[in-house]
Amino acid sequence: MRIAIGLEYHGAGYCGWQSQATGCGIQDHVEEAVRAFLAIDGERVPLICAGRTDAGVHASLQVVHFDCPIERADVAWVRGVNAHLPPSIRVLWAKRVDPSFHARFSAISRSYRYLLLNDAVDAAILRDQAGWFHMPLDIEAMKQAAALLVGEHDFSAFRAAECQAKSPVRHIFETGIERRDQLLLFRFRANAFLHHMIRNLVGGLVYVGCGRHSVDDFARILAGRDRSQAAPTFAAQGLYLTDIEYDDSFGLPATRGRLPF
Amino acid sequence: MRIAIGLEYHGAGYCGWQSQATGCGIQDHVEEAVRAFLAIDGERVPLICAGRTDAGVHASLQVVHFDCPIERADVAWVRGVNAHLPPSIRVLWAKRVDPSFHARFSAISRSYRYLLLNDAVDAAILRDQAGWFHMPLDIEAMKQAAALLVGEHDFSAFRAAECQAKSPVRHIFETGIERRDQLLLFRFRANAFLHHMIRNLVGGLVYVGCGRHSVDDFARILAGRDRSQAAPTFAAQGLYLTDIEYDDSFGLPATRGRLPF
Repeated sequence: MRIAIGLEYHGAGYCGWQSQATGCGIQDHVEEAVRAFLAIDGERVPLICAGRTDAGVHASLQVVHFDCPIERADVAWVRGVNAHLPPSIRVLWAKRVDPSFHARFSAISRSYRYLLLNDAVDAAILRDQAGWFHMPLDIEAMKQAAALLVGEHDFSAFRAAECQAKSPVRHIFETGIERRDQLLLFRFRANAFLHHMIRNLVGGLVYVGCGRHSVDDFARILAGRDRSQAAPTFAAQGLYLTDIEYDDSFGLPATRGRLPF
Repeated sequence: MRIAIGLEYHGAGYCGWQSQATGCGIQDHVEEAVRAFLAIDGERVPLICAGRTDAGVHASLQVVHFDCPIERADVAWVRGVNAHLPPSIRVLWAKRVDPSFHARFSAISRSYRYLLLNDAVDAAILRDQAGWFHMPLDIEAMKQAAALLVGEHDFSAFRAAECQAKSPVRHIFETGIERRDQLLLFRFRANAFLHHMIRNLVGGLVYVGCGRHSVDDFARILAGRDRSQAAPTFAAQGLYLTDIEYDDSFGLPATRGRLPF
């Protein structure tokens, strides 16, 4: 049978979602906890996730599926797998799903937030949980630039050199930037994202905010599809995968807010 | 001359504000950084803080003063001391103040916030930064109970056995409880607080919220001044010292929001 689980994790100390030979991937820990809960030795239970997150990136909701020959109650999955996970990874819910469900291919959209401390002094409390920029930022210019991203575009200018996606075209449904005193909160929702795309977009928007690029420069860089013309990648620790949208027919539990922003 | 500094710190990994023989107090690290910045060996520069925080408790603003024979520009204090501090402690501002200023005795009020995750599964992202309670909470009952705390009261029912204060009487100016999805945010402002007082108050309010105590029980417990009748102390990691109020005449910089809640 196919099981979907919703995960929350703090990305610090892991080398990202993906399984690694050294076992430092979040996937490694979750696969190991599933094996331990089912008391099956040796055999791997491969997990498929909705969005592969980089080292240091957090998820307030990551969705994962796997196939398993052993039946357990949904609530038993939550308690049982959590008992074998480190405290910085938590199963929030589990649900037996139709075999047509696929965590990656069934996803309609992915939502991410980026938290940025905009202050002269870097963060103590949020040191693992926010990016940092020390110069004043013109948030109105940044909002104008962010609005240009909505729609279907070739995002080659904001794509990592190592990106393995076949096409650089993605459809951004929504962007938002909000200031709360010294913190800036960015929101992005798209059908999918390229490797490092959000961290590169945040870098580009910060360049607009500090006046290094104009909104017109930003539009030209997007249209130019040349990564070398765009701003540098922003820090991983400010990035949060926050939601995955699926068709209601799969009946997955609603996401609930466990982040304070 | 007398110097006041504003500090932010993440309390995890420290045994609280106060200096310890083992050097694990936040005060130890700040005193050491001040000494290193001034390049004075051996001699201690004793720091006086506005509110001594427990092990695991955070501060988005702690105010400290010390006397120092060496003159430095305010901005040099910030950069210079930060260069010698671990990343989880940061000087936000420094200001030369009138010798009549005293971080503790000049304080008119202290403000604290408590962040509580109220959900079936404990926190991964906020594991060091929020308390946790798994059962549903009646926030309206909690608000009624919190309102009873405003004014001058003998808070013996919410005072730790080890509390060294001469009087158990404190004046609470303001309380607040706000729900944001699965997170509850408590606010308290008082002339001063007793040892463990806020964590004990949060414990008491959670007992009201889950129906273990009625609002009337809570009122009786406050009036009864007997610690053994009240609910247990809540976890340190959800508590934040967020502001200290002083007379405007001291000219201290305004606090700026560096917390996302």
